Amino acid sequence: MVRFLRMEWTMKDTPAKTEIGVTTGPIRGSKKIHVGPLGVAMREIHLDPSSGESPLRVYDTSGPYTDPTARIDIMGGLPQIRRDWITARGDVEAYDGREIRPEDNGQLGPDRSGGVPQFPRTGLNRPLRAKPGMNVSQMHYARAGIITPEMEYVATRENLGREMLEAYVRDGESFGASIPDYVTPEFVRDEVARGRAIIPNNINHPESEPMAIGRNFLVKINANIGNSAVASNVASEVDKLVWSIRWGADTVMDLSTGRNIHDTREWIIRNSPVPIGTVPIYQALEKVGGIAEELTWEIFRDTLIEQAEQGVDYFTIHAGVRLPYIPLTAKRVTGIVSRGGSIMAKWCLAHHKESFLYERFDEITEIMKAYDIAYSLGDGLRPGAIADANDEAQFAELYTLGELTKRAWAQDVQVMIEGPGHVPMHKIKQNMEKQLAACGEAPFYTLGPLTTDIAPGYDHITSGIGAAMIGWYGTAMLCYVTPKEHLGLPDRDDVKVGVVTYKLAAHAADLAKGHPAAKMRDDALSRARFEFRWRDQFNLSLDPDTAESYHDQTLPAEGAKTAHFCSMCGPKFCSMKITQEVREFAAKQNAPVETFVAAEDAEAGMQEMSERFREKGGEVYLPAE
Amino acid sequence: MVRFLRMEWTMKDTPAKTEIGVTTGPIRGSKKIHVGPLGVAMREIHLDPSSGESPLRVYDTSGPYTDPTARIDIMGGLPQIRRDWITARGDVEAYDGREIRPEDNGQLGPDRSGGVPQFPRTGLNRPLRAKPGMNVSQMHYARAGIITPEMEYVATRENLGREMLEAYVRDGESFGASIPDYVTPEFVRDEVARGRAIIPNNINHPESEPMAIGRNFLVKINANIGNSAVASNVASEVDKLVWSIRWGADTVMDLSTGRNIHDTREWIIRNSPVPIGTVPIYQALEKVGGIAEELTWEIFRDTLIEQAEQGVDYFTIHAGVRLPYIPLTAKRVTGIVSRGGSIMAKWCLAHHKESFLYERFDEITEIMKAYDIAYSLGDGLRPGAIADANDEAQFAELYTLGELTKRAWAQDVQVMIEGPGHVPMHKIKQNMEKQLAACGEAPFYTLGPLTTDIAPGYDHITSGIGAAMIGWYGTAMLCYVTPKEHLGLPDRDDVKVGVVTYKLAAHAADLAKGHPAAKMRDDALSRARFEFRWRDQFNLSLDPDTAESYHDQTLPAEGAKTAHFCSMCGPKFCSMKITQEVREFAAKQNAPVETFVAAEDAEAGMQEMSERFREKGGEVYLPAE
Repeated sequence: MVRFLRMEWTMKDTPAKTEIGVTTGPIRGSKKIHVGPLGVAMREIHLDPSSGESPLRVYDTSGPYTDPTARIDIMGGLPQIRRDWITARGDVEAYDGREIRPEDNGQLGPDRSGGVPQFPRTGLNRPLRAKPGMNVSQMHYARAGIITPEMEYVATRENLGREMLEAYVRDGESFGASIPDYVTPEFVRDEVARGRAIIPNNINHPESEPMAIGRNFLVKINANIGNSAVASNVASEVDKLVWSIRWGADTVMDLSTGRNIHDTREWIIRNSPVPIGTVPIYQALEKVGGIAEELTWEIFRDTLIEQAEQGVDYFTIHAGVRLPYIPLTAKRVTGIVSRGGSIMAKWCLAHHKESFLYERFDEITEIMKAYDIAYSLGDGLRPGAIADANDEAQFAELYTLGELTKRAWAQDVQVMIEGPGHVPMHKIKQNMEKQLAACGEAPFYTLGPLTTDIAPGYDHITSGIGAAMIGWYGTAMLCYVTPKEHLGLPDRDDVKVGVVTYKLAAHAADLAKGHPAAKMRDDALSRARFEFRWRDQFNLSLDPDTAESYHDQTLPAEGAKTAHFCSMCGPKFCSMKITQEVREFAAKQNAPVETFVAAEDAEAGMQEMSERFREKGGEVYLPAE
Repeated sequence: MVRFLRMEWTMKDTPAKTEIGVTTGPIRGSKKIHVGPLGVAMREIHLDPSSGESPLRVYDTSGPYTDPTARIDIMGGLPQIRRDWITARGDVEAYDGREIRPEDNGQLGPDRSGGVPQFPRTGLNRPLRAKPGMNVSQMHYARAGIITPEMEYVATRENLGREMLEAYVRDGESFGASIPDYVTPEFVRDEVARGRAIIPNNINHPESEPMAIGRNFLVKINANIGNSAVASNVASEVDKLVWSIRWGADTVMDLSTGRNIHDTREWIIRNSPVPIGTVPIYQALEKVGGIAEELTWEIFRDTLIEQAEQGVDYFTIHAGVRLPYIPLTAKRVTGIVSRGGSIMAKWCLAHHKESFLYERFDEITEIMKAYDIAYSLGDGLRPGAIADANDEAQFAELYTLGELTKRAWAQDVQVMIEGPGHVPMHKIKQNMEKQLAACGEAPFYTLGPLTTDIAPGYDHITSGIGAAMIGWYGTAMLCYVTPKEHLGLPDRDDVKVGVVTYKLAAHAADLAKGHPAAKMRDDALSRARFEFRWRDQFNLSLDPDTAESYHDQTLPAEGAKTAHFCSMCGPKFCSMKITQEVREFAAKQNAPVETFVAAEDAEAGMQEMSERFREKGGEVYLPAE
C-alpha cells in the first residue's frame, strides 16, 4: 500500500516540532525482488495470467522505500549495505572527522535558530578514509584486476531480464559504443579500468546501491534537488529525494545554497540509496558570505573534506573555467549561465589569476581517491542559449576537461564530464563527438540539451528531445530539467514530471542504441495494449498511477478496465479487434499468410475465400465483457 | 482581455437550451496585426522599451478570436475572407447541394432528438464547385503559372520578420531541403506546382486563412479533435477548435465518429480560420451502421460530396491499404492500428477484393479537383508499436502511396502523405528518406512518431521527440499527440499541452533546418532572460500564461517580475549578473577581449589588471529593484 510516512519529533535544540515524510509502498503492479547472492534490488511487474507471460524485470532505483518488508526510519537512515564490502578490503581507516562548524550551515549560531535539525544519528563522526598511501577508488581496484562486490552488483543490475531473451536480434545504431549481449562482472571491471564507466560510491555512503554510468550500460538520469536562498526546507528535500528515486532517478544532486547546507545534505545522504552529487563551490561560497573573490583554496579544500566525510559520491568541479577562456564569453547572448562557472569567473577576474581549481587539480584528486569520490568535471562555460551553442568558449573548456581527465586517471580517480545546455538539434552530435575524442571516452553527463529557448514552462520537453538524441549518440547520464526550469523552484509534481520525462528519453536512447533487453518492456506493453489488458498496460508503464487516472477520466467504470475496447473508438468498432480478425482469418485458411499475396493474382480464388470468411463468422464485434 | 465568450440559444427543433463558448481576447503581451494589401494575420509581441528592440512578429494561427476589434459570432461563422478571390477567378458555379439526410448524423430521426443543433446560418446549401471541365486546385493554377492571392498570402505569412534580419548567417542542416532566404509568391507557386507544398483550402471553406504545408516552409502542426461514440459534444469540440488554434495548431482534423457527425463538422468549419481535415471513411462507416463490409463505393462517394460541399480542406484517404498487404500485418505485435486502415482491411478481407479506394482513386481525384480538396494519403498500415516499425507492410503501403501521388498529380490535385506512428529513433530517418524517394517530395505528415511504447500518459513527449527529429529531417506537418493518447479522449487541457509540445518540436525542427527568422525568437527570449526582463520572457514564450504562473508559484510578489534575480539563485548571487560584470570589465579595459588571452601569458600584467578591477568597483551585487 502506498502511503506517505510521516515522522515528527522535537529536538532539544529546536523547540518547534519537526516533521519529515516520504512516500513508501510498492509501485503499482510490481514487487521488489532481490536477485543473486548480493541481493541486487529489482522490480518485477506481474502480468495477467491470461497473457501467459513471465513477470517482467525492470531496473529499480527506489531503494527500500518501495519494499513493504523494509522498515523505514528516516531518523536512523538506510541500512549500510556496503559497509562490510568496504571494510573487508582492509585499506580504510576510521578517524576523527572534521568538526562541524557554524559556517557549514551558513554562519548560523550554535543555537541553530531558524535552522534545520541536525540529523539525529549519533556516533557518526568517525568517517572512513583510505589508509596512508592507499587508493580506494573503484578504478584503482579495476586497474589492479580486482572485481569488487560493487562491480558484481552492477553486472547483475544491468542485465535485468537479458537471460530470458531467446534468440535476441540486435537492432540499433550505437555510434561506436561496445554494448555486450550480456554484462559480466569482468566487463564492468574492464569498463571502469578504461575510464569508460564510473561507479560513484564514496566509502562514507555505504547506504548506496552500486550503479554504473557509462556508454555501454543503460542510460542513466539525474535529478537535482536542494534548498535555495529564497525557498525550501529540509523536509521537502528529503521528500523530493525519495519521490525522485521512486520514479527512476539514478543519482540525485543536492544543489542546496543558502543556509543549512550541511545538515540538509546529511539528511539526504543518510536516506539515499542512490549516489549523491554536489557542487562544493556552492557551499564554499556561502562560507565566505557569498563574495566570490574571497574564496580561497583552503576554504574550498576544507569543504571538500567536509563533504567527503559525509559521503558525497561525486563532486562537480569547474576546473575547466580557466582565466583565458572567460573573455570568450563576453559576446555571448547569455554569457556564463553556470553558477559554478560564474563564481570561478568572478574569482579569476577579481584576482586576475588562473583558477585555483585548475592549479590545485592534482591535490583535489588526492582527496577524491582517499574516499572514492568521482569527478563530474563541470561545464562552467556551457551555452545558456541557442545562440551560444558550440562556441569557442564551450569547446575551449571541453579540451581542458579532456586534459584534466587524463590527470585524474593518472591517479586512478573516476571521472565523468558535464555537457550542455542549450543546443539546436543539428549541433548536438558534434558535442558528443568532440567529448569522446577530447576526453578519452570518459562518460558524458549532459543537462538536456534544450533544443529551443522559446518554451519556458515546457523545458522538460525542449530538453527531453535533446536528451534522447544525445543519449542515443552516447551520453551516459542525462541530467533532468523540470517544467519550472528558468522560472522557479521545482515542487514535488515538477520533480516527478522531470524524472519520468528523462526516464522515457533515456529509454528511447537505449532502444535506439540497440540495448539488449530494452525492447522487452516496449513489446510487453504493446502486447498488453493489443490484448486490452488494461491493468498490465498501466503497470508496465513508467508511471502507472498517471496512466490509470487518465484512462479513468474518460471511462471510470471498473468494467472498462477489462473491456475489449477503449474510449477512442468505443465498443462498436475497434482497429485492434480487426487485426485479431486478420490473424484468425489467416489461421482458419490453414495456410501461411503469404498465400494471400499469391491469391491476389488468382482472381478465381477470391470469391471462394470471401464466402468462406462469411461462413466462418465474419464478425469481429464481440460483446464487451 | 481574455474571456470565455458564451452563446446560448433555444432552437425550435431542440427544446433544450444550447450553449457554445470559445476563448477570445489577445494572447498575453501581443497584438494582432494585418500585414500588406491582403491583410495577412500575424501577431506582434511588444518588448519592454528598455530592450531597445522592435516588436517581434510571430506566425499566428488563432484567427479573429484573438483580435479584440473582431466581432465573434459563433452562430454566424467567421467572415469569408477568400470568397471574392474564389469567385473572381470565374471558374466556379454555385449549385443546389446534396440534401442533408438523417444518416449523415448517424441515423437520427428528423426530430434530431438527442442530437446537435443544426448550424443556424441559412441559405448555405448553394455550395460552389468547379464549372464543368474546370480544375480549381491551387496546383492547377500554379502549374498554369498563375500566382493566386492564396499564394501571396502564404508568402507574406511565411516571411514573418525576415525582412528585419540584417546580415543573416544561415546555420542549419536541412538534409536537401531548398529553403529560400526570402519567400516570394513565385516561390510559393513553384513549390505548389512541383507538388512539394500544398495549400489546403476547399472553395467551400472561404473562412480559412491560407497556409502552406511543405518541406521548404515552416514546419506545421495539426491538432485532432472530434466526438467519439462514447463521449463529447459539439460545444466542447468548437471550444477545442478555437483553443487549439489559439496555441498554434496550423490545421485541425475533425475525427468525429458516432452520431451528429455532419452537424458537428458544420459548426467546426464555419468557425475555423485554419484548414479542416477529415477521414471520410469514418462517416461512411456510420452510414452503414458500423459494418465495414457493407461499405460501398456509392456510399463513400456520397460522403465525399457531402463533406466537399461543407468545405473540408483535406481528406485522409487510405487508398494504400491494398488487399495483398493485409496479411503482412498478421505477425505484428499490434497489427493494424489505423482505424481507417482496419476498416478497409475488414472490407477487403470480407469481400476478398481489392480496396475500392484504390480502384476508384482517379474518380476520387475528380471530386477533389472540383473543390480543391487536398489528399492526405493515409498510412493505414502504420506501425502501432516499436516492434512493428519500418516493416514490410508499412513500406509496401508507402510505395503505393507514391504511385497514387503521381496519379493525383496527373490531375493537378494536391497531395500530402501520412506517416507513422511508433518508431525508435534509429529508424526515423529511413522513413523520411523512403518517403521523399517514393513520393516525389510530396509533403510528409507524420503522427509523432513515438520513440518508445512505455510511457502512456506522457506520449506527447515520447512522440514530441520523434516529431522534432522527423521535422528536422524534412516532415512538413506534425500531427500532435496528447497526454491521453492510448488512454482516453483529450480534454481542453490535453489539447493545449499537445499543441504547445508540437509547436516547440516544430520550432526545434525549423531551427535545426536553419530556417531564416526562426532563431530570432529564441534570441529575443534569451536576451530578455539575460536582462531579467521577466515579462518579455513570458510574452515571447509559446505559452505566456503558464510561464508566468510557474514563475509566480515561487516568487508571487509583483516586484519579483522586475527583480534582477530569480528563485534559482536568489538575490545574493546570480550567474547572469557575473556575465554582465565580465562584459563591463572587458569594456573598461578599453581593449578587445582577446587581450585577456594574451595577458594570461604576461604574468607581469596580471597584478595590475586585478588592482584596476578592484579600483573600478569589483562588485556585481546591485540591490534588487
